[in-house]
Amino acid sequence: MFEKRYAPVGSRPGTLVISEHSPQPSIKVIHYDESEVLEFSVSNADLLSDNILQLRACLEDQKTVTWVDIQGLGSEEVLLAIAELFALHPLTIADVVNVPQRPKTEFNDDYAVNIGMMAKILGDGRIDLEQLSVVWTRCFLLTFQERSGDVFEPVRERIRQGQGTIRKSGADYLAYALIDTKVDAYYPILEELGERLEDLETQIILSPKEESLQEVYNCKRELLQLRRALWPQREAISTLCRDESLFVKKSTRVFFRDTYEHIIQVIDVLETYREIAASFMDVYLSSVSNRMNEVMKVLTIMGSIFIPLSFFAGVFGMNFEYMPELKLRWAYPAFWIFILASIAGMIIYFRKKGWIGKANSNSK
Amino acid sequence: MFEKRYAPVGSRPGTLVISEHSPQPSIKVIHYDESEVLEFSVSNADLLSDNILQLRACLEDQKTVTWVDIQGLGSEEVLLAIAELFALHPLTIADVVNVPQRPKTEFNDDYAVNIGMMAKILGDGRIDLEQLSVVWTRCFLLTFQERSGDVFEPVRERIRQGQGTIRKSGADYLAYALIDTKVDAYYPILEELGERLEDLETQIILSPKEESLQEVYNCKRELLQLRRALWPQREAISTLCRDESLFVKKSTRVFFRDTYEHIIQVIDVLETYREIAASFMDVYLSSVSNRMNEVMKVLTIMGSIFIPLSFFAGVFGMNFEYMPELKLRWAYPAFWIFILASIAGMIIYFRKKGWIGKANSNSK
Amino acid sequence: MFEKRYAPVGSRPGTLVISEHSPQPSIKVIHYDESEVLEFSVSNADLLSDNILQLRACLEDQKTVTWVDIQGLGSEEVLLAIAELFALHPLTIADVVNVPQRPKTEFNDDYAVNIGMMAKILGDGRIDLEQLSVVWTRCFLLTFQERSGDVFEPVRERIRQGQGTIRKSGADYLAYALIDTKVDAYYPILEELGERLEDLETQIILSPKEESLQEVYNCKRELLQLRRALWPQREAISTLCRDESLFVKKSTRVFFRDTYEHIIQVIDVLETYREIAASFMDVYLSSVSNRMNEVMKVLTIMGSIFIPLSFFAGVFGMNFEYMPELKLRWAYPAFWIFILASIAGMIIYFRKKGWIGKANSNSK
Amino acid sequence: MFEKRYAPVGSRPGTLVISEHSPQPSIKVIHYDESEVLEFSVSNADLLSDNILQLRACLEDQKTVTWVDIQGLGSEEVLLAIAELFALHPLTIADVVNVPQRPKTEFNDDYAVNIGMMAKILGDGRIDLEQLSVVWTRCFLLTFQERSGDVFEPVRERIRQGQGTIRKSGADYLAYALIDTKVDAYYPILEELGERLEDLETQIILSPKEESLQEVYNCKRELLQLRRALWPQREAISTLCRDESLFVKKSTRVFFRDTYEHIIQVIDVLETYREIAASFMDVYLSSVSNRMNEVMKVLTIMGSIFIPLSFFAGVFGMNFEYMPELKLRWAYPAFWIFILASIAGMIIYFRKKGWIGKANSNSK
Amino acid sequence: MFEKRYAPVGSRPGTLVISEHSPQPSIKVIHYDESEVLEFSVSNADLLSDNILQLRACLEDQKTVTWVDIQGLGSEEVLLAIAELFALHPLTIADVVNVPQRPKTEFNDDYAVNIGMMAKILGDGRIDLEQLSVVWTRCFLLTFQERSGDVFEPVRERIRQGQGTIRKSGADYLAYALIDTKVDAYYPILEELGERLEDLETQIILSPKEESLQEVYNCKRELLQLRRALWPQREAISTLCRDESLFVKKSTRVFFRDTYEHIIQVIDVLETYREIAASFMDVYLSSVSNRMNEVMKVLTIMGSIFIPLSFFAGVFGMNFEYMPELKLRWAYPAFWIFILASIAGMIIYFRKKGWIGKANSNSK
Repeated sequence: MFEKRYAPVGSRPGTLVISEHSPQPSIKVIHYDESEVLEFSVSNADLLSDNILQLRACLEDQKTVTWVDIQGLGSEEVLLAIAELFALHPLTIADVVNVPQRPKTEFNDDYAVNIGMMAKILGDGRIDLEQLSVVWTRCFLLTFQERSGDVFEPVRERIRQGQGTIRKSGADYLAYALIDTKVDAYYPILEELGERLEDLETQIILSPKEESLQEVYNCKRELLQLRRALWPQREAISTLCRDESLFVKKSTRVFFRDTYEHIIQVIDVLETYREIAASFMDVYLSSVSNRMNEVMKVLTIMGSIFIPLSFFAGVFGMNFEYMPELKLRWAYPAFWIFILASIAGMIIYFRKKGWIGKANSNSK
Repeated sequence: MFEKRYAPVGSRPGTLVISEHSPQPSIKVIHYDESEVLEFSVSNADLLSDNILQLRACLEDQKTVTWVDIQGLGSEEVLLAIAELFALHPLTIADVVNVPQRPKTEFNDDYAVNIGMMAKILGDGRIDLEQLSVVWTRCFLLTFQERSGDVFEPVRERIRQGQGTIRKSGADYLAYALIDTKVDAYYPILEELGERLEDLETQIILSPKEESLQEVYNCKRELLQLRRALWPQREAISTLCRDESLFVKKSTRVFFRDTYEHIIQVIDVLETYREIAASFMDVYLSSVSNRMNEVMKVLTIMGSIFIPLSFFAGVFGMNFEYMPELKLRWAYPAFWIFILASIAGMIIYFRKKGWIGKANSNSK
Repeated sequence: MFEKRYAPVGSRPGTLVISEHSPQPSIKVIHYDESEVLEFSVSNADLLSDNILQLRACLEDQKTVTWVDIQGLGSEEVLLAIAELFALHPLTIADVVNVPQRPKTEFNDDYAVNIGMMAKILGDGRIDLEQLSVVWTRCFLLTFQERSGDVFEPVRERIRQGQGTIRKSGADYLAYALIDTKVDAYYPILEELGERLEDLETQIILSPKEESLQEVYNCKRELLQLRRALWPQREAISTLCRDESLFVKKSTRVFFRDTYEHIIQVIDVLETYREIAASFMDVYLSSVSNRMNEVMKVLTIMGSIFIPLSFFAGVFGMNFEYMPELKLRWAYPAFWIFILASIAGMIIYFRKKGWIGKANSNSK
Repeated sequence: MFEKRYAPVGSRPGTLVISEHSPQPSIKVIHYDESEVLEFSVSNADLLSDNILQLRACLEDQKTVTWVDIQGLGSEEVLLAIAELFALHPLTIADVVNVPQRPKTEFNDDYAVNIGMMAKILGDGRIDLEQLSVVWTRCFLLTFQERSGDVFEPVRERIRQGQGTIRKSGADYLAYALIDTKVDAYYPILEELGERLEDLETQIILSPKEESLQEVYNCKRELLQLRRALWPQREAISTLCRDESLFVKKSTRVFFRDTYEHIIQVIDVLETYREIAASFMDVYLSSVSNRMNEVMKVLTIMGSIFIPLSFFAGVFGMNFEYMPELKLRWAYPAFWIFILASIAGMIIYFRKKGWIGKANSNSK
Repeated sequence: MFEKRYAPVGSRPGTLVISEHSPQPSIKVIHYDESEVLEFSVSNADLLSDNILQLRACLEDQKTVTWVDIQGLGSEEVLLAIAELFALHPLTIADVVNVPQRPKTEFNDDYAVNIGMMAKILGDGRIDLEQLSVVWTRCFLLTFQERSGDVFEPVRERIRQGQGTIRKSGADYLAYALIDTKVDAYYPILEELGERLEDLETQIILSPKEESLQEVYNCKRELLQLRRALWPQREAISTLCRDESLFVKKSTRVFFRDTYEHIIQVIDVLETYREIAASFMDVYLSSVSNRMNEVMKVLTIMGSIFIPLSFFAGVFGMNFEYMPELKLRWAYPAFWIFILASIAGMIIYFRKKGWIGKANSNSK
């Protein structure tokens, strides 16, 4: 439940905390301008030696865009080397590594940072959230992902094929394309959750089971988790379409406004889902009460009819010597008539109360 | 539950998503000035060929108002042709097509856009929400509707008959007339919902059934859906009566303020309904508890009276050889007196507790 | 539940909707200055003919104050005649007639409008809300009431008798006197509701009945209705004591501030009442649960004591040939000793559990 | 529940409402400067005659501070005389007399007014709230209390003994000393309530009784009442430490800021208490449910074991002529073996379900 | 529950309240500049005599930083001596001593004050909160702690070893280091609470016990307590990174912003925990209802089967003389067939209702 990677209390600001479960960084570079695209990997060893002339060359060319994508945060050495290469502030690299950081957007004199949560649906239906940090200047862009695997393949394809304006625009447009894609990736997740809620709704209203309760609870937990990831991202994206900055051109800001509307819509749907899931609990409790009512009615009807009758049968089984009615020839048939009349009377009474006769209803 | 039409994750901004269920666009034009009105349809084929001189002529005439009403969003070709003809931004046409978009009002240098939800009650009492997008400049106005069928016939009639000031005013007044009509169309829906809630109230207080619960739940769902449609529209209309803009004259702003008051009133009523519907759940649960109480009382009274009596009957049915009371002549009548006295005692006890005697009350 | 009178969807702005149940307008004029008071009625016929010289004369005299009080909104002709005579905007007269309008205060170049809800307690304890619209310039003041009957008699008396400063002040002070009286009229209503809540509190805590639940529900509904009437009035009155305006003198603004404090106090009390009424539901539910607990305890005690005993009685009523104990002389007394010991044991057990012995408590 | 003293609806602003239960005013004056202190009482008769030269003399001396303390609001004559003497606005004196007024701070050209609620704990543990109105200029200060008895004795002692800076400072510092004392007097009340809540907590968790519920309800009511008194006082005190004013020196404002922090802390504690009291209701309901569960289990265990056994005993008590087993010698012992085995089986079954064996737990 | 140390009501501002349980102050000084570090203790006796030349010397040296750490607030004499030595305002020293003070940051002309709550986990898992007050100018810094024992050892170590920039920066950076450490110390506490909530979650969903309820309640109480400590600290830290001040350099403000993000993240997690704990109550109540349902079903099944059968056994145990069926040879076997058929019928009926057959499910 608590998953924050934090530095030992009292250690100095900017201390990195590398989990032993974090995969080793894998670094891929896409370098493009309007006319050509160059893709290559950088090995960690290259990065740590001085053998990264190619990357440095990319960065010095002011007319192209260089996207350095780092997947995996498992090596302090490599991350510090990158921080040094791109002149990142110690607090920035700490924000990137000590996940999860609260989503935010920050501009400083040298670069812009946007930290957010990227969501994927895993094979078993669970939602996987991982931190995505995007750092960009005018001509290069860094992405840091916790694990390998992301939702950006279509963007890479757009760069390769030169569709639309992506190749003609700067690093800020690439930042937009990535952040927008990250936000849009919540749509299929909401769709999936919507379907689960719809199934649950049918189940709870038609035939509530004890497992339904747990499933409602799980849904609520997942919605809570998404909510916690989304609200601060909304704020972070709002900063991008509002604040004047060197690193977001005016033409790009229009696109960020579109992204902002998308995230507001995602949050709207999420809040609606939360309200629906909350009302499931009420419906479930009402159903349980209703079913208990039904159980009690069966017992009450059976008990109210046969307990008194047993008493009468018991009376005539008594061994008193002087019970004159036992001798009477018509006494036994009369007993049965009395019994049947009693049963009929009780049934009429319960039917009048609405407890029987309409087998599946609980009307009073 | 999730009904957003969204472009594949990572596709480029402005990608249109045409559902196969969307009907083909049907385009109707009303062209008017103070002295005359011209109505005609434009076929999709015309639009795609260069055969739409008439429409182009309309647009070039700066003194008239041209209302182009597009019902159905089922053809990417046609929609892109319209977007090109009216010089709409790719993000605008995507907002129009990828329904539902969050309601909003936007002004740019070339036109104003208002996106909202139009509500109708269907024959079977269900509420039908569809997106209505209105785009206007000074001299033309476009409306995009998801399906054919709308609530604007009275506005068309006002244009034809030249009632009031509609023919003497510009496209912004037409925009007001349409948006105001869209908002006013929520009144009959609230009236219908109000009647349903009143019926439900009587039912739940007088004779709650299990179905009532489901109906309360359905009402709450519909109110939630309306709420989600209305709150952002309020904001969108507030923009229209507040912001300085080329496309809303000062004289028209007074009318938009009236529309704004209407939508606030609609939301007020809606929130009151939501509160009422929420309190139904409490009343229902209390009723169920009360009824269970009644069921239990019947069982308890029957059991408490006859279980002990059965024991006594059982005692005198035992076969011990030495049970002297069995021989006594008055023993059997004494038994009956004891039994009747016990029953009377129990009844007095339960009556004192208030459990019987006042057949329909649950007082303690 | 839905009581808004609204124009047909799509009709042009300013359309009046006259309900057939609205009474015919009755118009009374009070015309006064510091030295004298003149009261007279205007018949509807007079108004529609040109025969209203007297009223026109009043209006032209800039040094006096003329209060035209219209009770009943049942005639479109008369209302339009008034609107024309006083040069009211079509939207203003529509706000006045298409009740209930959301309470508000508006200033335009020609007059000030305050729309609010006037509350009265009817003979049967029900609360009657009706719209009161006040329109005023410097020298005349119009009031529109839905029905005849209002709370303003003391104000009229103050004018007649020239008490205080009312005769020396302008139409804005008269507006203050009326709006303040309207707000103060909520105090006796709160007093009445407070008494009802106090009765209900005693009832629910001491002896909850099923009817109490419905009464709580009714109280909550009435409080909700008042709340809906009061919150926007607060805003409307706040406008009066905050905004610079031609139609509210600085000396009068001090008095409006006093009215504003009164309405805040009214709302404070109302919200407290709402919270109290809400907590009644919890107390009621707890009481129902407690009573069910008591019912179950009686059954459980009776059942737990006598069901096993019946079994033992049954055993010795069996007809096996070889049941040696049946022959023993002391067996029957021993049976009774066993029975009484069992009963005593159970009673001790239940007393230890706290289920019996403290007749009116539910302690564990 | 409703305790507002309000003027008849429609009466003119500033009308005083004197309750017959209000005690007669008792007026005490403390007149001091750095070097000496003078204390004396003013009888109501003196005040109404022109015989108050001493008081008037005090007021004219600009270098001293005169505190006139009026306890009891039972005489319209006296209050109006005071209002005239100190030139109070009619609305101010009405605010003072028509209690309870909503707490507020107001500055006008002639004086500052602070209205608040003073709280005391009575002997029987009930909380007594009374309105305290403080009116001050640079050189005199009036306090109006509803009843005699207050929390200001330590302040009077500080004046008499000349401790600290109170004798060297003006009327605004005296106003601070009184308002601060009024706020600090809430601390012991919170302490008392905290102890009651702690007792209640122990009681509800260990052995909930029906009376606990009522006590929780009473606590919630008292907290609600305090809340209603405190929130507007917070605002009133915030005005004192924020607004520029002739009647609060800059050096005194620092102290008012300290008072403001105290009232925020008081409100913080109060809100925490409210949340705790609210959660008691949930705990109570859960406990009631748990106890009912236990009751039902006892009945179910007893019933499930002995009802079937009674049937078997009944079977062998039947009088059929041909029941061969009745003749068998081992049948009766076999019957008992069967019975004991059944009981053992049921006990094992219930133990497996966790219903018995762990006497005080409800585990499944 | 109420733990505020407050001065007697009405005492003069700045009165200190020393609890007899407060430990005697122990004073430790760390005096450092870039090149060297000096640590020494000051005994209380030294402080009260004029024998503290060393400390005074430190303070006069404008190029070094002197951190005076006071643990324990048990001596009014010592605290007043410190207040005098460092020229603290009487209200400041009262805020420090009369714990708990509401967290806040204040700047005045002479120093900055930050008051907050420092949290530690004790050995038995309980959370210990104590007030930490930090007062600093450019060249010295005072910390006041309620008790000995804190979370600052790593900071002291950083100073001793000269790691990072701490030795090269002023007192404001030291203030940052301490406040940041205080905030970071909440992370392990949240981790601990997260684990407890996770355990509780498993327990409540799989096998809810009565103790679980109390544990949920305890968790909620602790979260409430933390919340009350954290929200005002957030505000206090926000002041530090927002307001212009002599005592926070621009370069340090960047670090305070990092601290601010940490505290927001802490609060985010806390609020999520609160929501989760609140939903546990619902799940618990549903489970209790479900279990009661199961208990009732067992009773109902047993009762419904055997109560009627007992009646039939009773009938044939009656002693009427003329009961012809008793003579019939096949009557007894027929009776058994009837009994077994009845049992089978009931079982089929209950199985159809879903009450038996799926031993551990509660499906209807």
